[in-house]
Amino acid sequence: MEAIEKEEFRVPRRLRGMQKSNIRQIFDAALPGSINFGLGQPDLSTPRCIREEAVRVIQKEENGYTSHAGLPELRQHIVDDYPHLGLTADDCIVTVGSNEALYCATMALCEEGDEVLVPNPAFPAYPAINRLAGAETVLYRLPKEKEFGFDAEEFEKQITDKTRVAIILSPSNPTGRSLSRDDLKEIAGILEGTGIYAISDEIYKELYFTDERPASISEYYDKTLVVGGLSKNMSMTGWRMGWLLGVPEAIKRALVVHGYNTVCTSTITQKASLAYWTDAGKHAEDHCREIWRRRKDLLMELIESELRLPAFEPEGAFYTMMDVSSLGDEMDLVNKFLENKVITVNGSGFGDEAKGFLRISYCASEENIEEGIARMKKAINDR
Amino acid sequence: MEAIEKEEFRVPRRLRGMQKSNIRQIFDAALPGSINFGLGQPDLSTPRCIREEAVRVIQKEENGYTSHAGLPELRQHIVDDYPHLGLTADDCIVTVGSNEALYCATMALCEEGDEVLVPNPAFPAYPAINRLAGAETVLYRLPKEKEFGFDAEEFEKQITDKTRVAIILSPSNPTGRSLSRDDLKEIAGILEGTGIYAISDEIYKELYFTDERPASISEYYDKTLVVGGLSKNMSMTGWRMGWLLGVPEAIKRALVVHGYNTVCTSTITQKASLAYWTDAGKHAEDHCREIWRRRKDLLMELIESELRLPAFEPEGAFYTMMDVSSLGDEMDLVNKFLENKVITVNGSGFGDEAKGFLRISYCASEENIEEGIARMKKAINDR
Repeated sequence: MEAIEKEEFRVPRRLRGMQKSNIRQIFDAALPGSINFGLGQPDLSTPRCIREEAVRVIQKEENGYTSHAGLPELRQHIVDDYPHLGLTADDCIVTVGSNEALYCATMALCEEGDEVLVPNPAFPAYPAINRLAGAETVLYRLPKEKEFGFDAEEFEKQITDKTRVAIILSPSNPTGRSLSRDDLKEIAGILEGTGIYAISDEIYKELYFTDERPASISEYYDKTLVVGGLSKNMSMTGWRMGWLLGVPEAIKRALVVHGYNTVCTSTITQKASLAYWTDAGKHAEDHCREIWRRRKDLLMELIESELRLPAFEPEGAFYTMMDVSSLGDEMDLVNKFLENKVITVNGSGFGDEAKGFLRISYCASEENIEEGIARMKKAINDR
Repeated sequence: MEAIEKEEFRVPRRLRGMQKSNIRQIFDAALPGSINFGLGQPDLSTPRCIREEAVRVIQKEENGYTSHAGLPELRQHIVDDYPHLGLTADDCIVTVGSNEALYCATMALCEEGDEVLVPNPAFPAYPAINRLAGAETVLYRLPKEKEFGFDAEEFEKQITDKTRVAIILSPSNPTGRSLSRDDLKEIAGILEGTGIYAISDEIYKELYFTDERPASISEYYDKTLVVGGLSKNMSMTGWRMGWLLGVPEAIKRALVVHGYNTVCTSTITQKASLAYWTDAGKHAEDHCREIWRRRKDLLMELIESELRLPAFEPEGAFYTMMDVSSLGDEMDLVNKFLENKVITVNGSGFGDEAKGFLRISYCASEENIEEGIARMKKAINDR
């Protein structure tokens, strides 16, 4: 042997084959000055009432650990927003963003041999978190021919005796679609008696453009854990404010994971977040929602009038799915847009059901939306 | 059957038998107005330079997500404090306190069937995190007859072909002891060639009362991951600022866990923490260290002169181990102290090697230390 072989790192099974996400690679390839339709975070500033309260607690208060579960007053506010569940503050955990809530819920519910139902398409963290918890992901189609709406047959046929959890996501990243009350009743009817837990990801709950706020599966199905947070509706992504609430026995176990994982989320973030449950907080949220609505209307109008491409009307969140299947390979188009300084994300990054679509996020100013559409139009015409 | 049996929650194997910690139960039983010698967090305020910078970034900057690994400038500062490792900022992850660093490191290194060497006594999170990662904890004695110092024979005899990780903790919670350079050389000599990873928990590294700052096993053994943070030395427990650095292949995998677990720690915390690596930051740290030293000297003097009990001289952290074996059952004494409004923690909560000891933390003002000792004296005399 001419050289000593470099020792290989033994990768634990839970991490084998996990790769840098396709979305991350797109961002890494973006040119300076690009207009970003790829983002999953608001570009709006965190509302003043939150920031002022954070400044006050930093200047005037001590900020040691909170209990693992988080400030009791904060947890009380959170469970009060789900009055139909009749929970106490003990049935809620404040987490490091909604991502840690998902993580702790999955670790508390699943083990090797379990299956987790995940929408196709959906936020790519679900399959990854399932892997970390030792569970298998089983996808259920949200058919593109139904504009990525819920399909009971597609859902029900994926259930096996190994199914432990069903992820329910509404409003959806990446589709911007919400589940209707009829959808939720259907889901509850299918799950009833199976022992399957629903994890309801409601991180986009307050970003809605329908007349009614999207309903929660927890209103129809009692074996539900709800995941939520303030990252999107209050433009607080970097603050790391999330929560998990629901079935007490499951929450008790998720709290063990949370305590040994992160102890608590930032105390400053927790205290400042109390300002969300005030008139000023709700006013700020309404104000942001109106901005998102205006941007959505502008974007949808320009996609139709300038690009002449089909796109699904968003009911919530800040994404639309634009059908580019008439223009050839979607990754070729993503790259063509990148060359023209526009960042978009391929739908297939969220599941093969969304192949042929791009996720267009409207986390951009109206001016940038107009300029971005112009660049896309030029890129399409120059092909 | 007269009643439908209540369905039992199926607890995943990783969580079976995990209980509320003994320490938590002591705190829950404390009376109002108690003097707290039980705490593991500084009672000093977060230094002004950190708080001022946090206020500035909240008022003047946007605070969205950072990259999963954290701010590059912050990671560069962190790796620069370990020049012997020759690492780049890519070999470091900013975490939600040092606890998440430990968690991610263990998840990235271990899987079912692995064993992790853990000091006895030590911080009780290690065995719990090992369980969550599917690994078995194997304790190695830090013998009380050596004042909880390192014992090479005790360490070496616990190594098997399943040993994947050895936890090295210096300065130690609960003992306040540090490992000498000779200890570290001995550990490195034992581990060399085994393929075992060292996880070096250095959260108390900057709280030392010896002439030299405690050395790191990473100076002697290259398969090391270092865990650290600003919680203790900069009184930032509630801010959640920690880190993990070391072997690139392992860090790469720990980053996957971290990204799907918490995404990033608070952006405000990250930006404010940059102030630690300034003259003002280092000055504040020195100032705190001097306060801890004065409190330690006072506490040790009073334990000797007032309580007349043996206690080991701390070399770092903010704990001493007080030998109460002459006074009967340690839990009886903890309860007696609780009745007299003094909180202490039984040594056996950290491992059976510390049975007969109490961990006395000096996270209390000099005035409270004096009053607390007086209450303990009275409690002992009243037995």
